[in-house]
Amino acid sequence: MADIKIGIVGATGYTGSELVRILRNHPDASLEVVTSRSYSGMKFSEIHPQFVDIFDKKLDDVNKLDQYKLDLVFLALPHGKSMEFVKEKGVKSYKIIDLSGDFRIKSTTLYNQWYKTKHVCPKMIKQAVFGLPELFRNEIRRARLIANPGCYPTSAILALAPLIRNDLIKHKEIVIDSKSGVTGAGSKAKDNTHFPSVVGNFNAYALHHHRHTPEIESVLKQYSGTNIQALFTPHLLPVDRGILTTIYAKPKKKIDCEELKNIFHTFYKKESFVRFLDSPPSIKNVRGSNYCDIYVSYDSRTNTIITVSAIDNLVKGASGQAVQNMNILFNLLENSGLKNLPLSP
Amino acid sequence: MADIKIGIVGATGYTGSELVRILRNHPDASLEVVTSRSYSGMKFSEIHPQFVDIFDKKLDDVNKLDQYKLDLVFLALPHGKSMEFVKEKGVKSYKIIDLSGDFRIKSTTLYNQWYKTKHVCPKMIKQAVFGLPELFRNEIRRARLIANPGCYPTSAILALAPLIRNDLIKHKEIVIDSKSGVTGAGSKAKDNTHFPSVVGNFNAYALHHHRHTPEIESVLKQYSGTNIQALFTPHLLPVDRGILTTIYAKPKKKIDCEELKNIFHTFYKKESFVRFLDSPPSIKNVRGSNYCDIYVSYDSRTNTIITVSAIDNLVKGASGQAVQNMNILFNLLENSGLKNLPLSP
Amino acid sequence: MADIKIGIVGATGYTGSELVRILRNHPDASLEVVTSRSYSGMKFSEIHPQFVDIFDKKLDDVNKLDQYKLDLVFLALPHGKSMEFVKEKGVKSYKIIDLSGDFRIKSTTLYNQWYKTKHVCPKMIKQAVFGLPELFRNEIRRARLIANPGCYPTSAILALAPLIRNDLIKHKEIVIDSKSGVTGAGSKAKDNTHFPSVVGNFNAYALHHHRHTPEIESVLKQYSGTNIQALFTPHLLPVDRGILTTIYAKPKKKIDCEELKNIFHTFYKKESFVRFLDSPPSIKNVRGSNYCDIYVSYDSRTNTIITVSAIDNLVKGASGQAVQNMNILFNLLENSGLKNLPLSP
Amino acid sequence: MADIKIGIVGATGYTGSELVRILRNHPDASLEVVTSRSYSGMKFSEIHPQFVDIFDKKLDDVNKLDQYKLDLVFLALPHGKSMEFVKEKGVKSYKIIDLSGDFRIKSTTLYNQWYKTKHVCPKMIKQAVFGLPELFRNEIRRARLIANPGCYPTSAILALAPLIRNDLIKHKEIVIDSKSGVTGAGSKAKDNTHFPSVVGNFNAYALHHHRHTPEIESVLKQYSGTNIQALFTPHLLPVDRGILTTIYAKPKKKIDCEELKNIFHTFYKKESFVRFLDSPPSIKNVRGSNYCDIYVSYDSRTNTIITVSAIDNLVKGASGQAVQNMNILFNLLENSGLKNLPLSP
Repeated sequence: MADIKIGIVGATGYTGSELVRILRNHPDASLEVVTSRSYSGMKFSEIHPQFVDIFDKKLDDVNKLDQYKLDLVFLALPHGKSMEFVKEKGVKSYKIIDLSGDFRIKSTTLYNQWYKTKHVCPKMIKQAVFGLPELFRNEIRRARLIANPGCYPTSAILALAPLIRNDLIKHKEIVIDSKSGVTGAGSKAKDNTHFPSVVGNFNAYALHHHRHTPEIESVLKQYSGTNIQALFTPHLLPVDRGILTTIYAKPKKKIDCEELKNIFHTFYKKESFVRFLDSPPSIKNVRGSNYCDIYVSYDSRTNTIITVSAIDNLVKGASGQAVQNMNILFNLLENSGLKNLPLSP
Repeated sequence: MADIKIGIVGATGYTGSELVRILRNHPDASLEVVTSRSYSGMKFSEIHPQFVDIFDKKLDDVNKLDQYKLDLVFLALPHGKSMEFVKEKGVKSYKIIDLSGDFRIKSTTLYNQWYKTKHVCPKMIKQAVFGLPELFRNEIRRARLIANPGCYPTSAILALAPLIRNDLIKHKEIVIDSKSGVTGAGSKAKDNTHFPSVVGNFNAYALHHHRHTPEIESVLKQYSGTNIQALFTPHLLPVDRGILTTIYAKPKKKIDCEELKNIFHTFYKKESFVRFLDSPPSIKNVRGSNYCDIYVSYDSRTNTIITVSAIDNLVKGASGQAVQNMNILFNLLENSGLKNLPLSP
Repeated sequence: MADIKIGIVGATGYTGSELVRILRNHPDASLEVVTSRSYSGMKFSEIHPQFVDIFDKKLDDVNKLDQYKLDLVFLALPHGKSMEFVKEKGVKSYKIIDLSGDFRIKSTTLYNQWYKTKHVCPKMIKQAVFGLPELFRNEIRRARLIANPGCYPTSAILALAPLIRNDLIKHKEIVIDSKSGVTGAGSKAKDNTHFPSVVGNFNAYALHHHRHTPEIESVLKQYSGTNIQALFTPHLLPVDRGILTTIYAKPKKKIDCEELKNIFHTFYKKESFVRFLDSPPSIKNVRGSNYCDIYVSYDSRTNTIITVSAIDNLVKGASGQAVQNMNILFNLLENSGLKNLPLSP
Repeated sequence: MADIKIGIVGATGYTGSELVRILRNHPDASLEVVTSRSYSGMKFSEIHPQFVDIFDKKLDDVNKLDQYKLDLVFLALPHGKSMEFVKEKGVKSYKIIDLSGDFRIKSTTLYNQWYKTKHVCPKMIKQAVFGLPELFRNEIRRARLIANPGCYPTSAILALAPLIRNDLIKHKEIVIDSKSGVTGAGSKAKDNTHFPSVVGNFNAYALHHHRHTPEIESVLKQYSGTNIQALFTPHLLPVDRGILTTIYAKPKKKIDCEELKNIFHTFYKKESFVRFLDSPPSIKNVRGSNYCDIYVSYDSRTNTIITVSAIDNLVKGASGQAVQNMNILFNLLENSGLKNLPLSP
């Protein structure tokens, strides 16, 4: 029974191809239309040749979208383009799940400052719900516009939420050291993602000015009601997929490692896509799947809580989470279409 | 409806974990028992941590197998161990799909010579059916013991079959130049698969004595009724999964490239898992999937037919093909449980 | 004593940076000027940051070249640009080593056909010497314009030369199956060299129309006096550096493997940069060095000679060989400045 | 003039082969003897095939060492074996540079606790000098036994030294988040360094119990006279060589970013092997070289100093630094034999 009629706008990037990979096997979804400004007229599988004979639909221009009767549109557009789309089209006949950063930050001041551009559709920001199901499931259920979380923020917020919710750590001494695979930088070839530049290499980038910083802080503030300040440092891993985030936090009071683990276990025990582990996670153990693996430990010597999380940046960090949000929006089983197991080795 | 009761013998290697990855989502399979001599008593997910919270079943000793009422047993054992199992247990209450090389070669002389050991169960070789569905679907349907093809032979035979069936090439001037990812060498750590030895590296190995050579030749002979001789050279790629095989063959008579492509197209048009492509394949376009991608071309300058094929060695080259065989054995849709799309990028 | 005054034209690509890596430690070379049209005015180390504090010289526009009194100019330009340079400047005050393909092929007809452009400086082609020292050392010594060999041709010709020189193989049944690292495709970011497109991937490309084909054939013809025809298939390896070439050839007459090995051993025993090996070579064993490793074997079953060679495409396949040519041109020890040992692991 | 007579004990691991790679081109070193217990009698180049035709010397048993008149012995032995060697042989006729961890920590209590074994030669610990030239050059000059630093400690201590020497940071709020290539784990094949386990993967390990922790702390204490406490988290990168270390520290007082950069610049301006950079370093920009690249930044928002350093773990993190120490010991130019430039790409 494929009855949710779906459009994907901007389907030629990595989040677009991941949406197709997942939705083609979703029991309740029907992919009606995929659009691209630059490649309209070409087959989807000419851009993404892994889909030859699987999904050869022609790419339409985004203007053709209104010719389809859709229940849901995924915006797989770059930052800046999504807010233009929403400004122009509104959220009327179909619901929207936006994979860009345009509706994640509630404060336009923060948005303008970190994204270095002026938000063109501020009135819709309030309606937008941050689509992290583990924290905002109820709000998601009722949303019409979902701001699908960033990849780094997903890995950081899920690792910090149990600590913040239980008021266990100091709010302004959080260090988030993240390492991401190259697909996080998008499908467009650039000098710094040229194969010989990346293979055998590793480096930090965007030190203290990556725009996922305000996303992490403002979502955690919204979640906890307290101001949170975090230092976020991203690094570029020579792998295609995966984010590993190592977080250092200072306990507010005396803490016991066993108790800490119990808190995490309890916090996530009903979740389908969070696995709380006994040992530090690895990105390959979640590759291609919607899992977020989390580990926590307490170093008594330096009085520090260390949390490590792992996701596939294109799945739980993007398109998988978007489908999880769709499932919630349409009252389906939350793991519907998301049962692919990790591809390892 | 999960009604095919399944056991996996030797479940701690890569073909074992791939079988679990696929069968856990198979609508008609129930994994009753997984065995390991070395790790019995441990959880499957302690050996393969990607399956924590997904498949935590305890590994049994193989001796416990008879306590289960099984329909099918997959032998994910090393060469030599499978024939011992079959010799001891026979093929009585359950069917067997053997992923080792023990029952692939019909001639014990050839087996003994290339595997450098004496076959211990020669009488079962005759009963065994070579489990390459695209060539031997009817025989598979009636089999009780299936010899699941080797990874290299799968990629080579599927690329050569249309040429041989249509008697287009000289039988003794075939060069098969194959390149495989490291999982093909098994899950056991060895010096030549140590990460620093492989990354950034590439080399040929086992020149003119790899034991997939007689498998390729004898299966093609069985298929065509003619003696086939091929020179097979394997290489080790610095990737985890994937085989690309480039084949050079000499036409028997004048050939036209268009006609050649038509022959391949016709040969495979009804197959679910063979994609005949317009441009040379890439291993990443089949990663994690059961596809075999094939391309053919004719170089008039040197009068040579070039065929290139790509598979995931652990899926179409091993466990995926084994499940495809299971589906045929049990009269299911051939792609049942095998709908995972290629994981790319 | 640094007395050879050198200019590098087009120094911002990979062959340019390799030349600097080697020449900075050359006892007899002085890097007077490095040029770039696009980046003139910037420091060399801003483009190639590995050279910060090592070689921070400003890039000049190529027009400034005449202000320097140079003994030798390396042209590290793309194909097409080198012949324009030579046409305009001639070969007067300084010698030229050209790393592009513009002067490698003696026949302008062949050049125009395979490079799909018209040669603008045909009269200089005759003067140009193909800079493969192991075959043309005497000619190189007297040259003023050296056409530095292509990377694939270096690996193929050195592996074939002993067979051809000793008239051991059939001239028109040669298959050259080559696999190259990504630096061979240049330093410019392209879709097919985007990291996520290459990592974990492998494919053949440019089937039967790669322009190194006529280079291999015409140089071997020039060397042997006979027409040689070869089928050349390049593949793209997920590594930064290295070419491995596997060659299949048919013996003209009965051959003995021991004798074959002796022929290769004798042919190369006085060479500094060719290592004739007892076992198949690996690209990592030559990484960063000017070695070409070669192995030969005879498969009596299929009556085929297999030769395997390995080079670092940026060193023996480009800039290292260019410096080797410089050493010959200026009567230095041939391995001067080229003593870097392979970086492995 | 090759007059320092050298032995390498335990030459079959990675630090052994790197020593040979460097010392073969050292103008003042003569490699007299290389030893191995397990492989004595074999050629060095049979174990390390990159050295075929370059260094084919036979491996001797360590007992033969006394037959050579040596000036210097490098111990490239595992932890535990070096102290046994020193206990047995003493430091009499030749100087010793030990690449293991056995003589790096001055407190036997700490050693016993973190290395989980009892030190067998405590009286020599006092004589041993920690071989980090940038901090202890004078002591090294007079030493007879040098404890060559660990790879992680080299990257961490050099990044912290200017801060600690100038008393700029709080002593107990230091977080060291390090990422290392796989050669750091040694040349022996293990499950967790099996290629398919590492490629495409990334993980943290040895959380709060890695034995480089006390090395970092005690050396910085020795250097500064104050107790230093640091939380050290290592991660495993899917690359062969390279360590990138990201350090977070809290300023003691108000700090200005410009001033901070000046302090680092001044601290390292006379050093041959430390490059203080304007932008975050990359491990590939130091590959194969003895450089340590360092960057520092101040995040005013969270009041944190971030320092990032990059080394090649086998060169500046092991064998290159050992040769640098040798040069100091024997009054040579400190960069003698260490002029190899970074191999990038």
